Amino acid sequence: MSTNGVEEVFLFDPQLLEDLPFEDQKCATYKPEIGPTRPGDGLTLRPLCVSDFDKGYLTLLTHLTKVGDISREQFEERFQAMVRTQPNLYYTVVIEDDVTHQVVGSATLVKEMHFIRQCASRGRIEDVVVNSTYQGKQLGKLLVDVLTLLSKKVGCYKVSLECLDNMVPFYSKFGYVKEEGQNYMCRRYVPK
Amino acid sequence: MSTNGVEEVFLFDPQLLEDLPFEDQKCATYKPEIGPTRPGDGLTLRPLCVSDFDKGYLTLLTHLTKVGDISREQFEERFQAMVRTQPNLYYTVVIEDDVTHQVVGSATLVKEMHFIRQCASRGRIEDVVVNSTYQGKQLGKLLVDVLTLLSKKVGCYKVSLECLDNMVPFYSKFGYVKEEGQNYMCRRYVPK
Repeated sequence: MSTNGVEEVFLFDPQLLEDLPFEDQKCATYKPEIGPTRPGDGLTLRPLCVSDFDKGYLTLLTHLTKVGDISREQFEERFQAMVRTQPNLYYTVVIEDDVTHQVVGSATLVKEMHFIRQCASRGRIEDVVVNSTYQGKQLGKLLVDVLTLLSKKVGCYKVSLECLDNMVPFYSKFGYVKEEGQNYMCRRYVPK
Repeated sequence: MSTNGVEEVFLFDPQLLEDLPFEDQKCATYKPEIGPTRPGDGLTLRPLCVSDFDKGYLTLLTHLTKVGDISREQFEERFQAMVRTQPNLYYTVVIEDDVTHQVVGSATLVKEMHFIRQCASRGRIEDVVVNSTYQGKQLGKLLVDVLTLLSKKVGCYKVSLECLDNMVPFYSKFGYVKEEGQNYMCRRYVPK
């Protein structure tokens, strides 16, 4: 993709999103119908780019948790570290408003390599966020559906996430279940 | 480290385990006292090596879950993919019996890169397993303590894990808590 003559660097191959079997295998129902290649009027869904630093990506993340003061250099350094993981392990998807050129939604799939299960990989869905002005446009649903399909496409044998009580019904729509007897435990080195 | 004149390839820098502030910051109590540099008589704790393919590492993992039939080539390929992640993201620790040259315990810390919290990283502890013949030697406790300390040392702002109900009291010893209102949800593409 070329923007103003400058070649854009994607976090992962955009083709992966175009090839998704969304029409056949999506989990949620959409009214009106939207999808990864047509996320809604004036919106584009694509992999995270370096230029999203200038498109409010970090501001969007502040709706989720603390972000802090990240310089362009720090952003690019982290972005490049994610790009360098081979096989690719980081899949951050963003939704951009084509008029304001702001990132209005985002979610990340992280792939994790194991030796168990024939050197399997598992997926984790993280940092799902939609700008409150854009809520009601089914974008959260679309992001989770897309990343869940992507986790299967890139070879994960399972995909998981952590969420608050009030989000359990939402994630249940996509086939996520709270498995009997399974617990999530956490130790924090800095306050929440 | 050189074994029989062949240079050994570690998954991560062994120095990281030697430098751990284990004496000051360990979480569990040990009777008798053991530690990362002295895990018990005739035992050595170190990073996973390629040669652990021949030391029963994969057989040990079958005590945990399905492993399947993994060739040496497949093992080395996955090992090298983990080594190539930069910054290093995979920290598998093993305990070897110096007499039988078998791997008798293992656990993995996976580091995960984020943009939130000043481009923070979080840790996940996975695939903790000890050969049943070696139970009662405090090795499970040692592996979790070592990886928890390592998660802090390599810069994680938090570290988490998933476990069964009966293991909650065990992991509580190391400062892991079930946070109010937090849920773990999973979608599987193949049967458990």
